[in-house]
Amino acid sequence: MTVKSLHAVIMAGGSGTRFWPASRAARPKQFLPLARGRILLQATVDRLAGLFAPDRVWIVTNGAQARGVRRLLPQFPREQVIVEPGPRDTAPCIALATATIEARDPGATMVVLPADQVIEPVEQFHRMLRRGIALAADDRTLVTFGVAPTFPATGYGYIECGDPLDGAEPRAFAARRFREKPDLATAQQFLAAGGFLWNSGIFAWTAAGIRAAMAAGNPPLAEATEAMRAAQRQGRRAAVRRAFLQAPKTSVDYAIMEHSPHVAVVEATVEWDDVGSFRALTSVGVADGDRNCALLAGGAAQIALHSQGNLVYAEGKRTVALFGVQELVVVAVGDAVLVCPRERAADLKQLVEHVRAQGRADLL
Amino acid sequence: MTVKSLHAVIMAGGSGTRFWPASRAARPKQFLPLARGRILLQATVDRLAGLFAPDRVWIVTNGAQARGVRRLLPQFPREQVIVEPGPRDTAPCIALATATIEARDPGATMVVLPADQVIEPVEQFHRMLRRGIALAADDRTLVTFGVAPTFPATGYGYIECGDPLDGAEPRAFAARRFREKPDLATAQQFLAAGGFLWNSGIFAWTAAGIRAAMAAGNPPLAEATEAMRAAQRQGRRAAVRRAFLQAPKTSVDYAIMEHSPHVAVVEATVEWDDVGSFRALTSVGVADGDRNCALLAGGAAQIALHSQGNLVYAEGKRTVALFGVQELVVVAVGDAVLVCPRERAADLKQLVEHVRAQGRADLL
Repeated sequence: MTVKSLHAVIMAGGSGTRFWPASRAARPKQFLPLARGRILLQATVDRLAGLFAPDRVWIVTNGAQARGVRRLLPQFPREQVIVEPGPRDTAPCIALATATIEARDPGATMVVLPADQVIEPVEQFHRMLRRGIALAADDRTLVTFGVAPTFPATGYGYIECGDPLDGAEPRAFAARRFREKPDLATAQQFLAAGGFLWNSGIFAWTAAGIRAAMAAGNPPLAEATEAMRAAQRQGRRAAVRRAFLQAPKTSVDYAIMEHSPHVAVVEATVEWDDVGSFRALTSVGVADGDRNCALLAGGAAQIALHSQGNLVYAEGKRTVALFGVQELVVVAVGDAVLVCPRERAADLKQLVEHVRAQGRADLL
Repeated sequence: MTVKSLHAVIMAGGSGTRFWPASRAARPKQFLPLARGRILLQATVDRLAGLFAPDRVWIVTNGAQARGVRRLLPQFPREQVIVEPGPRDTAPCIALATATIEARDPGATMVVLPADQVIEPVEQFHRMLRRGIALAADDRTLVTFGVAPTFPATGYGYIECGDPLDGAEPRAFAARRFREKPDLATAQQFLAAGGFLWNSGIFAWTAAGIRAAMAAGNPPLAEATEAMRAAQRQGRRAAVRRAFLQAPKTSVDYAIMEHSPHVAVVEATVEWDDVGSFRALTSVGVADGDRNCALLAGGAAQIALHSQGNLVYAEGKRTVALFGVQELVVVAVGDAVLVCPRERAADLKQLVEHVRAQGRADLL
């Protein structure tokens, strides 16, 4: 398969509170070394090598994080870092990326993916992307990638699969329906019924295809996109910015994917982890014989005695010592230490709100 | 009462592991801000003001800690810091102090006390010392101070009281017997029987009196003391050092007090806390409505949500955040973080040995 104008768009604008205090406002999850010790964003860029030309990989980020992106990826071409004028969710982000890419390469095909996932092995990842890219080549099909669920997750959206598109591998289906994050009973039904995949947040389409879908499904978004394209062609940056800020603040799933009749889902035949909370780190960290899992960077160390099932995340020259404790998350990064039970790690947002309410937004 | 040659000797050479990682080899417990936020050693020096002339307060410490003493007490006269040539327990420490003081002031009366206790109020403290000093004036009586037990402690030695010496206040008794740290059942018996006091480790005697007791009870100690005195008078520092290192390595309780027929015990009518472990800090820290107790220095902060009964000790510009945890000790000092249950805090020595065994003596 040869796709002449193949571009990758890494969405790296997310913030989020589930990894506080490791993550902060200016240091989001994708900047953390959660990919088996490597920075998620770096791992995401590296994972694209071989399928995408280096000058066709783009990172969309925000003003607060742009400096961090440049620092973490000093080799990454600056002109391929797209800075969003404001936080507007994924639909305007994709519109801006589309307008920017088309100004250089009008016949572009785009793969869009989050910056903060762990995906292995890379060969299978490329294979699944190639399958999606081929399906999108008709300038109409919007491709999403779905992960076979291994447990009744309530933290992911699901895609209900329709008929298989053909007999090729990896398998691909018409998407019958998008289901938002379900409650546990519903998730269990999905798992029992089969034919449901987790929505990975990875997409493939041509620029023409996604613009056609915008025009059909969300005219205000399409209008903003066309305005960005025109301004981009003319090099009028202020006009690009204005158009971006006029785009509806919405997600591409909600604005386009859930309603488009031309969505295909490719089964993601990879190990996939969106590393949703500290708890998930047990799958990417290193555990000792007592199930104490450590994720350490920058000279950090862990010492545990009479302790089982804990997760330690530490950065910098410091040692976290555990004595007689079980099933805790202990995080020591910069000017903050967090201690919470592993089973509460997914609720960290509550603590972050509390920190804010205490007037300590400086910690966030 | 007028005592012309009244000296105080602060024994500040202890190390200890029960406050690791707040305490380290070069930063023992007495250097920590455990006296309601003030450094224990500083509080001990300040507590003597008004009863002892500034040039008659002495600190005995070791080589590793002498610099810290000078840094923490920049106003304290350098010539009154006595540096032990090696770690030899309290009997040689007292012998060296006695020889040093007598070289300047042959008729000295001495109060000897640990550097690492919290004692309040100061007026009562002085009153109890004056009582002891008066009893010691006969150049024969060795005075110890005993604290009325409030629970069956197994971590303290006990003094069994004999007959009251007189009707004066605070009460004083002939010491009938010293009892080493008892097991719980024995401690409970002591408490039920009455007439037992905790050994505070504070003493009063004249220089002549303690030397006479050494001569009677422990001739090798007496011999080393006399050698130190002679060398001190002649200004022969190397000879002082040699004599010190020849003194038996033993405690003054074991070498002298437990066997002397001339021991009196004055009841310590003060609030007394020897701050034996992190757990004890709940009595000297500041607790919130959820019984979370914080001992914070140097800009440290604590934030707790859905958490009860924890103890946080932190120094420096850092915040310890607790979320959904109960009855933990969390310490964040320098390059180390410790998490352990409060009920295990008294066993920290185990962890410290483990740290050493892991080849991380640099942390101790």
